[in-house]
Order: sequence, then structure tokens, then C-alpha cells
Amino acid sequence: MRALRLDQPTGPAGLRIAEVPVPEIRDDEALIRVRAAALNRRDLFITQGLYAGIRLPVTLGSDGAGEIGALGSVVAGLRAGDDVVIDPMLGWGEDPRVWDPAHSSILGMPRDGTFAQYVAVPLENVHRKPAGLSLEEAAAIPLAGSTAYRALFTRGAVRPGETVLITGVGGGVQSLVLLFAKHAGARAIVTSSSDQKLERARALGADLAINYATNPDWAKLLRSTSPVDLVVDSSGGDSLRRAIDAVRPGGRIVVYGGTNGDATIKMFPLFWKHVTILGTSMGSPRDFAAMLELFENGLHPVVDRVFELADAVAAFGRLDAKGQFGKIVLRVD
Amino acid sequence: MRALRLDQPTGPAGLRIAEVPVPEIRDDEALIRVRAAALNRRDLFITQGLYAGIRLPVTLGSDGAGEIGALGSVVAGLRAGDDVVIDPMLGWGEDPRVWDPAHSSILGMPRDGTFAQYVAVPLENVHRKPAGLSLEEAAAIPLAGSTAYRALFTRGAVRPGETVLITGVGGGVQSLVLLFAKHAGARAIVTSSSDQKLERARALGADLAINYATNPDWAKLLRSTSPVDLVVDSSGGDSLRRAIDAVRPGGRIVVYGGTNGDATIKMFPLFWKHVTILGTSMGSPRDFAAMLELFENGLHPVVDRVFELADAVAAFGRLDAKGQFGKIVLRVD
Repeated sequence: MRALRLDQPTGPAGLRIAEVPVPEIRDDEALIRVRAAALNRRDLFITQGLYAGIRLPVTLGSDGAGEIGALGSVVAGLRAGDDVVIDPMLGWGEDPRVWDPAHSSILGMPRDGTFAQYVAVPLENVHRKPAGLSLEEAAAIPLAGSTAYRALFTRGAVRPGETVLITGVGGGVQSLVLLFAKHAGARAIVTSSSDQKLERARALGADLAINYATNPDWAKLLRSTSPVDLVVDSSGGDSLRRAIDAVRPGGRIVVYGGTNGDATIKMFPLFWKHVTILGTSMGSPRDFAAMLELFENGLHPVVDRVFELADAVAAFGRLDAKGQFGKIVLRVD
Repeated sequence: MRALRLDQPTGPAGLRIAEVPVPEIRDDEALIRVRAAALNRRDLFITQGLYAGIRLPVTLGSDGAGEIGALGSVVAGLRAGDDVVIDPMLGWGEDPRVWDPAHSSILGMPRDGTFAQYVAVPLENVHRKPAGLSLEEAAAIPLAGSTAYRALFTRGAVRPGETVLITGVGGGVQSLVLLFAKHAGARAIVTSSSDQKLERARALGADLAINYATNPDWAKLLRSTSPVDLVVDSSGGDSLRRAIDAVRPGGRIVVYGGTNGDATIKMFPLFWKHVTILGTSMGSPRDFAAMLELFENGLHPVVDRVFELADAVAAFGRLDAKGQFGKIVLRVD
């Protein structure tokens, strides 16, 4: 079969299509014929050597959708040929609060991932594709969707009528946080330094879209005009510091990333305003199942662009340039 | 009546006993004959001019216990002469998540407080003294007790069998967090730079007492030997940074102060470990009532030393030197 292999962490240019054996499956695994996959920042970081515990060579890819090629054992409700989507969180464990650090991992390193014609995954990670989604749309949701679901609902506990601030809209996760927030009956405020992304976010339902580059005092402004109940942030650093300023007394801030680096935060507004900061990453099996349920209700993820697997290097380049809005998908023939 | 007055924020030395009129009460207030009061760091900060919105002259004092002198209206279960303790949180409001920023305040500035023979307070802030406590013990619990209760239970959601790390044990709040944690069936780890305070904490039930000055790697040590479910911290700064290191995956950190200043925190352990940071200060009416309930069950607060009201300057000096363990109480004849 064809697979996109990474031999050395020399950046996306080091990715190459290779002929490798179709994986063999165990009794507790399924073989999936991948039809579409999607890129995550994690994949890019691994090509760049910027990820903990890199083991090469490997087939990258956490997100994938396709048909069941074979099942290691009989599973109720699934059979060969069914369209499915893969939960990329392997071995989360029994604790809904956090994954099992000793036994969990994410599909696509160390375990070979979805940027290939076939992938072998545990049976418990195979889910029926939501009926209303194309395979390309389904491939766009796994990691971003479970991260967004957990951030907004499981950790953020959003309620109808609340105001949610989504900082740095544009990436795969934040675009889904926006969709989910509107679906949940919340008011959504988004920030970006790109007017084009703000326009896209407005079209997806954002109630207020703020360019943080041209409005440096946005946090102060929001505090006085539009109290924020919940912030969902993937940047950390200065963004987290401002979120503590912006959020209303008793408000919550969910953080699932740290692209801005360390955050220097003032203690007084944190304790005096009774603010809660909730760290989160990926999602549990429960989060994944609940997220799929949302997509049974007419939602569609935002697909930025679809590339052929053979054009993966260009797809990674687009991700690296941060120009996308929504998910970058690979079609796998 | 005699009252301890502060005319200028020139430090505790500026406090003086003065003869002032007994306060008049409205229909919705009670007049309390104070028998004992207790010091909080807030009182010290106000004498030093280190508090927001200082309005002078004033009678300081948030904590007090004594007898009802008069009631503005009939209240079920209360009558003149009853021993009572005062909830110093005035006008919290309807939201259990946070006080009403527009209408709430703390007794003892701007409203005249408990360092006097009489104090007028809203009827709803008057509570029967727990039967097993002396008036001096009762005076030691209001602000520290409701802060500790809210930190450990309402915000921290401690459960029996969990391990709680109490950083910088010694102050009034942290000594009550220790008592409450043991009462709740948790395991308690305390830190301090004073071996004497660590010894006192052990005597109060601490299961492990760590001198952080002589064990700079305590956070790392705990992570590998004694996973911490919940941290209760009043310092912020470096202490919060280390708490994020020390706490177990999925753990919680409650912060109710910031004596160490700003905290520079790393994003990765925050989101990767699914850590929750919960800011809190003071307690709601519900927290106060639940805290009193705990003291009906045989608990006693830690009273460091009892001073006469006339010796208040010496009492403040002891608080300022941070040599105390537990609450510093003033007896009011």
C-alpha cells in the first residue's frame, strides 16, 4: 500500500510516499481503508522534531475516515465496508478527568497513522461515520472535534445564553468551538489578527469579531461592554493573561495549548474575581462519542482545503503558514 | 464606647484607643457587644495603606464574637444576650459563584468593624456561636474559616482519601484548611520554611511536613512519591508554578492569595495534565453557614495568642512578623 512516511525530522519536505506492507491486525483491532485524513499541528511539530518522544520512521496522521476493511473480532453494529471515523486517542483509560499517562498515546506516532491507504486501530476506536457528513468532512473532525468538545462542554461547562470568547479563531479546533458554542445556544465572540478570518467567523455565526492587532485594549473593552462567561484559548502566554482580565467575575478560562509560551499572570484578579482556569487536551472516549452525536444534528465541520495525499508537502506548507481557516484534508485514493 | 481607631495609614503604630459613640442600628441590623475579635492580614494591609479604596478614619476588624445587644427587628432563633459570631462578608448577593462586585464589602472598612466594644451589622450576618467554642475561639473563625471552607470544599471539592497539599502552613486560613482536610478524611501534606510551624502542623494531624527552604526539589519529590490531588495555596508566584509541577494529572489547585506576586506558569503541564486552577477569596453566606456547621462537630480553631484590645499594636506586630501559628485574637472588655 502507499503511505506518507517520515524518516527524519527535517521538516515537511522530508515526507515521501512509499510502498509499505498493509498492516496486519490482531483480534482486538480493525483494518480501515482510509479515504480521507486531516492534518493537525501535532503532525507538523513531529516533522520539525518539535515533539516529545519522537520515534521514526513512522506514518503520521491522527485523523482519518474510510471503510472497514476487516475486523479482528465481531463487533455489534459494525461490519466490513461500513463508513467509519477513527478516535485517535488510544488507551485513555478509566479516569474521565485525565488520560492514563502510562498507557495512552495518540494515533500517528509512535503507532502508524492515517496518512496511508490502510491503518490498523483498536476496535474500540472505530465509530460509525455521522450520516450527514462526507468522508472528507468526517476526517476533519476527530482530534479537533474531541478537543473542542472537551474544552467547551466537559471542562468549560458552557450553558445556553452564556457568552464565550474564542481567542485566535481560525485553526481547526477553534472553528469547531465556534460551531459548537452557537449550536449550544451561547453568544460567541472571536478574536484574530486577520480580518479575513474574522469575516469567515462572522459567516459561521460569531456575534462579535475583534481584530486584536488593531484593538490592543480589547480585553478592557469587553470587560465593560460585553461580560465574558467562558474563554477558550489555545495560545497561553499574553493571551491567557488578557483572558483573566477580560473574563467576568466568577468566569472560566479553558486552555488547550501554549503557542504563545509561558504566561505571567497576576494573582489578584485570579482570586478576587473567583476565576477558574481549566487545562485540557484531546478528549476522552466519552467526549469523542458525544462530539460525534453533535454532528448527527446537522452540523458540518469547516474544511479549509482538500489536497491529494501526493501533495501532502504543500498541505503541510499551508498549515505551517497559518493561513487556513478550518481543517486541511488529504484525499487518499 | 472604646474603639481602636485608625486615622492615617501610617502602620499599626497609628492605631489608638478612642472614646466614640455606640453605633445606632436600623431595622435590618443588630448591635453586637463584642467580647473577642481577631486579626486578619487585611487589617494590617489597611494600616499600611496597602489596600484598595481605603477610607479613614475607621474602626478596623472583620472577625468578632460576643452577645447580641439589640436587634433592629425580631429574628427567629435570636434574642438579646445570645452568644453570636459575625459573618464579615456584607452583601455577597445571589450568585454562589462570586460576590456582587457593586454591593459587597467586608466588615471593618469602609464599615466600622469589630475592634470596639460594639459593632452594628446586618441581621443576616449574625449567627449563633457554635456551642463547643469559647467566644475567643469563635472570634478566630469568621474570615479565615469561610475562606478555608470555600477553598477546600466549595472550590476544591475535596473528597475523602484524597491528598491535599497546603503550602505555607501557619497563617489563620491554612491552619483551618489543615483541620478541615483531616476532618474530611483527606491526607494532608504541609510546607513551610519554619521547622517549628511544621512541628505544630504535625501535631494538628499533618501526614507529611516539608521544609521547602531545605528541600528545594519538593515538588519533583512529591510527584514521584506522593501524588497530590488538590493544592491549596495563598502565595501565588513561584509557589503556584511549583504547584502545577507537583499536582497529579487531573489535579486541582485552589489559590486565594498572592503574597509571592505574579506567577510565570508553563502552559504545557497545565493543559497536558488537565490541571484546574481555581481562584477564590472569602466565602458566600452558604460557605459561612457550612463552616460553622463543621465547628459544631468538635473542631477547634488554632488560636495563636490572645491580646487585650489595649495591646493591639503588639498584636499587629506579631502578625507583621509572620511568627504566628493560627489566629491572633483580641479580648474586648
